[in-house]
Amino acid sequence: MKNQFLCTNCAKQFPSTNHSPRCAECGEPLSFVTIQSGSINELSPLKYPFWQRYRDFYPYVNSSADVSLGEGYTPLTSLAKLADELDLDSVYVKNETINPTWSFKDRGTALGVLFALNLGYTRIGTVSTGNMAASVAAYGARANLETFILVKGDMAVEKVSPIAIYSPKLIRVFGDYGQLYDTSLKIGADNQIYFINSDVPIRVEGSKSIAFEICEQLAFNAPDYVVIPTSAGGNFRGIMKGFREFYNAGLIDSIPRPICAQSTGCAPIVKAYQQRSYAIKHFGQTSTIAHGIGNPSPPSGNAVLRLLTEYNGSAVAVSNEEIVSAQKQLAACGIFGQPASAVPLAAVKKLRQDNTIEPQATVAVIATGSGLKYTAAFEYHQLQSYETKVAELEICLKSLLS
Amino acid sequence: MKNQFLCTNCAKQFPSTNHSPRCAECGEPLSFVTIQSGSINELSPLKYPFWQRYRDFYPYVNSSADVSLGEGYTPLTSLAKLADELDLDSVYVKNETINPTWSFKDRGTALGVLFALNLGYTRIGTVSTGNMAASVAAYGARANLETFILVKGDMAVEKVSPIAIYSPKLIRVFGDYGQLYDTSLKIGADNQIYFINSDVPIRVEGSKSIAFEICEQLAFNAPDYVVIPTSAGGNFRGIMKGFREFYNAGLIDSIPRPICAQSTGCAPIVKAYQQRSYAIKHFGQTSTIAHGIGNPSPPSGNAVLRLLTEYNGSAVAVSNEEIVSAQKQLAACGIFGQPASAVPLAAVKKLRQDNTIEPQATVAVIATGSGLKYTAAFEYHQLQSYETKVAELEICLKSLLS
Repeated sequence: MKNQFLCTNCAKQFPSTNHSPRCAECGEPLSFVTIQSGSINELSPLKYPFWQRYRDFYPYVNSSADVSLGEGYTPLTSLAKLADELDLDSVYVKNETINPTWSFKDRGTALGVLFALNLGYTRIGTVSTGNMAASVAAYGARANLETFILVKGDMAVEKVSPIAIYSPKLIRVFGDYGQLYDTSLKIGADNQIYFINSDVPIRVEGSKSIAFEICEQLAFNAPDYVVIPTSAGGNFRGIMKGFREFYNAGLIDSIPRPICAQSTGCAPIVKAYQQRSYAIKHFGQTSTIAHGIGNPSPPSGNAVLRLLTEYNGSAVAVSNEEIVSAQKQLAACGIFGQPASAVPLAAVKKLRQDNTIEPQATVAVIATGSGLKYTAAFEYHQLQSYETKVAELEICLKSLLS
Repeated sequence: MKNQFLCTNCAKQFPSTNHSPRCAECGEPLSFVTIQSGSINELSPLKYPFWQRYRDFYPYVNSSADVSLGEGYTPLTSLAKLADELDLDSVYVKNETINPTWSFKDRGTALGVLFALNLGYTRIGTVSTGNMAASVAAYGARANLETFILVKGDMAVEKVSPIAIYSPKLIRVFGDYGQLYDTSLKIGADNQIYFINSDVPIRVEGSKSIAFEICEQLAFNAPDYVVIPTSAGGNFRGIMKGFREFYNAGLIDSIPRPICAQSTGCAPIVKAYQQRSYAIKHFGQTSTIAHGIGNPSPPSGNAVLRLLTEYNGSAVAVSNEEIVSAQKQLAACGIFGQPASAVPLAAVKKLRQDNTIEPQATVAVIATGSGLKYTAAFEYHQLQSYETKVAELEICLKSLLS
C-alpha cells in the first residue's frame, strides 16, 4: 500500500513502478499514498540525509546508495525587520538557495535518483529550463548515471554552461517546448531512462521535507500561512503533503493556509482561482522576470487548485516591479534570491494591504533559488556605489557616515 | 584569559578589544587563546548556529543577537569515484559552497558581526575583491549595521552587483590595493567601524568550525590530510586551530597534516616553503584563474609557514590548466566550485603522483566557494551539448545512448 500511487483527483490506485505520473483514468497527477503516522529519527543532519531523518515518511526509499550531496536542512531565517515593515507577527524565510546546486530542486532530485536506482535504472533525465536541469545534471554525475538533460533550443549560452559543467548529455531541443514533457516520458519509457520531471510523484516527495523542517524549526508550531512561488505545482503539492503528513502523525496541531504566488506575466493558477474554475487553461504568451516560475500550462495546476480549496488558501499574482522591489528588500535582510524567490514576499505585501493576511499571523515564505542563478536581474536594480582614491578614502568614508 | 589575543609568533598577550590584528611587538598576526578542553552541545544544527553547538570553543561569544543566516553545517561529501581515480583510500569534500552567500566566509563574518555587537559597534566593514565582500554586505544587512565595503576601483561591474544588491555603502577605491588592508584598520579605529578583514582573529575563529564539523562527520576520526586553498592564510589558521582544540579536548586522537594549496600564478607561501624560509616575500605580479586565492602578500603567510612546520604539512602550487581540469572533475562528481575550490583537488593529484600522499590516506579537501561566483571560468572549458528538433529527439537521444 505504501508503495502505491494514488490519483490526486479520483483516488484510483496504480503501482509506483508506473512510468507515467498521470492517472490513466482522469489524466490528473499521481501521488504517493499519504502517510498517516510516524515520528522523527534523531539522526544528525550533519551526517544523515533528510530521507533517513524522516524515514517513517519515506517508506519506499529502501536504497542505501550514497547519492546525497547534502541537500535540504536549509535555514529558516526569522526576519524581524520585514515583519515590522509588513506589520506582521513573524516572517520566516525558508532559504532554499543554500542547497548543493542552490535551489530546492535538489531535494526531489536526490530522491528521484534513489528511486531510479531502486527500480534498476542506469539512466536518468529531465526537461527543464533552469534549476532542475542543473540539479539533475549534478546528481546524475554524483551517482555515475547516464544523464540526459533536455533544454530549449534557443537557451542562452550563459544559462547552458552552469548545467553543462556537470558533463551530462545535454540536448538543446528546438520546437514546441510544451510537448517536451510528455515526449520525454514516452521516450524515457521506451529507452529505460527515468525522467525526473517537475511534478513526478518522487519529486513531490522531496518537497515534503521543506514542510518537515519548517515544523521542526518552529518547535512544531506550524506557521499560519506558507507562501509558495508556483510553476508546475510540484513543490506546492509536496510542501502541503508534508504538512498534512506531520499533522496526521500528530506532530503538529494545524496545517498552514497555503498561498500560491505567481507572476502577473505567467499566472495560470491565479487566473483559474480568481475565476473559481477547477481547471487551468494554458496562459498563452508569458512575460515575467521570474523565469523560475514561467510555466504557462502547469501540469499540477488543477491539483494546486484542489489544495487551495481543501486548506482554505489563496492565490495572488505580482508584477515585475513588485518582484524586483521584493528581491531588493530580501537582499537588504541578507538573503539574495533569484526573482522567483522574491515572489512570495511581494505576494505577502499585497495580501497585507488588503488584509487577507492578518497582522497576528506567522508567515513562512519559500525562497526557491539563488540570486546568482539569474544575474540579468541586476539590470532592473539601481545599485549604488561610490568611487575614491586610497589617499582620499577617509574623506569619502566620513561623508557617507550616518 | 579566554578573552585574550595571543601573538601567533611571540606569544605576547593583548586584550581582545585590541583594534589591530597584529602584534605590536613583532608584527605577526594575533589569535584568540587556544581552547584546552570542552565538549559538543547536542543542539540541533537545524535550529542553533554553530557557535552555540560548539559553545565551549567560543567562550567570548556572549551575544544572543539573531545574526545567523544559517552559515556552516555544510556537507562532507565522500567521493568514491575520485578516490578510485586518485588511488586513495578516501577523498572527502567539505562543501563550503552551500552557505548563505555561497562561500566559507560566512562563518567568520557571522562571528565578526556578533563580536562587533559585543564591543558596541554599529558600523562594520571589509576590504575584499570577492567572497568576503558579499558575505560582510549580507550579514551587515541582516544585523541592520552600517556596512562599508571597500573594493578595487577597477572591479568589473558583474562582480560589483552581487555585492551591491545587499545595499551596503560600497566604495570602489583606486590606487594601491595592498595598502588598503592597513588603511582600513586605521580609518576603522578612528571612525568606530569594525573591519572584519581576511585574517582578523574573530574571522579565524569562524573557520575553526570547518574542522569541528569534519571531525563530527567522520565520527571523530580526523582525516590524515586536510588540503586548504590558501590566500591571506586566515582560513588555514582557523581550520588548524579547530583541529588542535578538538585534539586538546580529547575529541580526536590525531591532527591532520595540512596541505597549503596555491596557484602557480600566486604562490607566495609555496615559494617560501620551498626555499625553507620563515618569511613570505611579496609575490609581485599575480596571474591566476583562482582569483579567490590571489593575495600576493598574505598577512598570515608566516603564520601558515609556522603551522606547516608544527604539523608536518606541505605546500604545493598548481597551474591554471590543472585547476580547470580539477574544476571539471569535481563537477563531474556533482560539486561545482569556483576555481579556487578546485585547487586542493589539483594539489592532491600532484601529491599523489610523487607519493607525498600515500594510497592508504584519508584526505579532506576544502571547496571554498560556488562556481556561480566566477562564471568567466566557463571560457576555459570545452562544454558539450547537442541540438535537435522535438520530432527528431528520440533519434538524437538514441544515438547518444552508451
